[in-house]
Amino acid sequence: MSENTNLSMDRETCVSRDAADPLNGFLHKFDLPEGVIYLDGNSLGAKPRAINHRMQTLLNEEWGKDLIKSWNTHDWYNAPRRIGDKIGQLVGAASGQIVAADSTSINLFKALSAALAMRPDRKVIVSEKGNFPTDLYVAQGLMAQLGGGYELRLVDHDAVYDAITDDVAVAMITQVDYRSGSKHDMAALTAHAHDVGALMLWDLAHSAGAFPVELDAAGADFAVGCGYKYINGGPGAPAFIYVASRHQQAFSQPLSGWMGHAVPFAFGTDYQPAEGISRYLCGTPSILAMTSLEVSLDLILSADMEALLAKSRALTGLFIDLVEARCQAFGFELITPRDPAKRGSQVSFAHPEGYAIMQALIAHGVIGDFRAPDVVRFGFAPLYIGFTDVYDAVEILHDIMAKRLWDKEEFKTRNAVT
Amino acid sequence: MSENTNLSMDRETCVSRDAADPLNGFLHKFDLPEGVIYLDGNSLGAKPRAINHRMQTLLNEEWGKDLIKSWNTHDWYNAPRRIGDKIGQLVGAASGQIVAADSTSINLFKALSAALAMRPDRKVIVSEKGNFPTDLYVAQGLMAQLGGGYELRLVDHDAVYDAITDDVAVAMITQVDYRSGSKHDMAALTAHAHDVGALMLWDLAHSAGAFPVELDAAGADFAVGCGYKYINGGPGAPAFIYVASRHQQAFSQPLSGWMGHAVPFAFGTDYQPAEGISRYLCGTPSILAMTSLEVSLDLILSADMEALLAKSRALTGLFIDLVEARCQAFGFELITPRDPAKRGSQVSFAHPEGYAIMQALIAHGVIGDFRAPDVVRFGFAPLYIGFTDVYDAVEILHDIMAKRLWDKEEFKTRNAVT
Repeated sequence: MSENTNLSMDRETCVSRDAADPLNGFLHKFDLPEGVIYLDGNSLGAKPRAINHRMQTLLNEEWGKDLIKSWNTHDWYNAPRRIGDKIGQLVGAASGQIVAADSTSINLFKALSAALAMRPDRKVIVSEKGNFPTDLYVAQGLMAQLGGGYELRLVDHDAVYDAITDDVAVAMITQVDYRSGSKHDMAALTAHAHDVGALMLWDLAHSAGAFPVELDAAGADFAVGCGYKYINGGPGAPAFIYVASRHQQAFSQPLSGWMGHAVPFAFGTDYQPAEGISRYLCGTPSILAMTSLEVSLDLILSADMEALLAKSRALTGLFIDLVEARCQAFGFELITPRDPAKRGSQVSFAHPEGYAIMQALIAHGVIGDFRAPDVVRFGFAPLYIGFTDVYDAVEILHDIMAKRLWDKEEFKTRNAVT
Repeated sequence: MSENTNLSMDRETCVSRDAADPLNGFLHKFDLPEGVIYLDGNSLGAKPRAINHRMQTLLNEEWGKDLIKSWNTHDWYNAPRRIGDKIGQLVGAASGQIVAADSTSINLFKALSAALAMRPDRKVIVSEKGNFPTDLYVAQGLMAQLGGGYELRLVDHDAVYDAITDDVAVAMITQVDYRSGSKHDMAALTAHAHDVGALMLWDLAHSAGAFPVELDAAGADFAVGCGYKYINGGPGAPAFIYVASRHQQAFSQPLSGWMGHAVPFAFGTDYQPAEGISRYLCGTPSILAMTSLEVSLDLILSADMEALLAKSRALTGLFIDLVEARCQAFGFELITPRDPAKRGSQVSFAHPEGYAIMQALIAHGVIGDFRAPDVVRFGFAPLYIGFTDVYDAVEILHDIMAKRLWDKEEFKTRNAVT
């Protein structure tokens, strides 16, 4: 432990570290409220400043003046493909394999439908017990619709590898666990799945935008992800779906709306799926939502991806070390892996009073979130969180614990939505 | 014909008629470009001015400052239900039967899935050959997924009534035909469907916001509709789905994402559908898109619905009469019903040179659109189109025809998207 330089880190050192940070210039490209340390970018990313101006142009010039013509003149029509390719740069996908579209849940339905159709002799979907619930719900909805015979095999995080056996059609795995922040080895799991003839569907909700992902290099079959977490596309921003080029012609997904048609403006009576990834589109996308997402992607893509990864690891490592050094006496149990290669860009601790502690933190300007039953969760968006933020957040946490500031009725009353 | 006062209408009379119009005040609540007569609100509604300010507040105060807390403090969480109830006021649905969500195509998939599940012994979906293609495509995608045995029975407009027989599970009918503007009698068709044990699914894409609809009074079972046409919610605005209260508990639709769960923030492993209409939600909605839609709905709801209907009929009637009076020699064939009770808020003519004529109109500031093979289509949004606009548009059309201004190569070259 004495070799850990984080333990001797004081606030001044953090300030210096921020000043030397190659991503330091990005802090000022986001709007963040005064007096708040925002450690919830894994739930809703902060707002890039550039969105306001771009949105005014969209409202006044594109929608307001050019109106319907904007589908052509401002190329609204290709937004899902153009934005998809930009997301591809974040997640290691060559052009033509991603579209921005719909919600993560809808895209899971498309990808699972495709995967099951491509493995008609297999009836098992493998996933994790602790996977984000919507993934499991979507699988259940699809299985109910397809009729009997399908099995959703749910196992613990560490049992996923062994659960992918030669009766498995598809493994639907979230790369970074939303509660613990544990990160799967994408290349190893994908290779194993292929060895037994299974397909891999990756959920990148807590990966995309937080650190570089390598979908093509790992040989992934399908992936989905979220636009409103580390991609900062705005509340409920469009999600995305990745289908490896080699699989795109194999199947026509069931949500066969007109935007996935080969020639939508021929207005033909019969559905003919578009070539390539466009067949994974369905209805008309919100251009307001797409535009906000694209502004944010352009900002992220101006950052160095390796610097992003290095800072994500440094911030999470510093937070773990400082909490353990300063708050050891207060009963926090780290549930995030200590090995930086095995975690995403978040840190979670279990604590029996986690709910009240998080409410007290929020009241004192440190925004993280709580996940049942007892997890306090802190996300570290490398573009707008600094080392000094980490230092200050831990000091506030220490104060709340040392003075039992969380022990008030107002902090224990549960909200409807948290 | 001599009794038709429209035929003697000159421009001054139109100006007076606008001045006396009870909806006249709404013209100034929309941003429309100078020198343009926008007759394409049936494709993309014009922008309400109030959206800019509201969007700034959303960006700066809600997303920018309150961040993740806004799901509670600004009630983003209930936006689909709150906005759904507002749409309900436009389409005659009591509270708790509509949610704003996803795209029209996705909502068709949900409603068709429910309808087929509720009539397990019947395998026929009835629709129109000329229905908007995405409706047919979605039915085809669902049928392919459900496996053999289903039939999509497509008939002509006037044959719909007779095609709904006692082997039909559901009739999926668009109230106003997107090409001709013909309007079905919702109450009569629904009553007939129920007489033979079939369910009725209405597509209100070209109805909602253009004139009052009476879903509850007609006894409709399901409906879907679009937020970006006459509702003016913005390009690709969220769509909506209506499920009559009596059917809501009968089925849990297959796109079972977490927003449709009974207790989404309990993060349980098993899907439990919410009570009521919320189970027709799936993933997280775009709050930017929802907010724009809500501003527009609030504006429409401040208008008198009967005045909207009267003006829709008056504008379309005036346009028909003036085109026929001024442009009779040029070969336009009216394909929209003359009886105002049998049409929506649009007028279409067939003309062999329709494509080039529409391009010439657009170049001369009259924005309508073209639908293959030969239809020029003009939408009359009663809130922001005036009688003088109709008069001027016909004069420009007359000029284009009389001088053959459409007969240029530039107007004949087809765009990728029109």
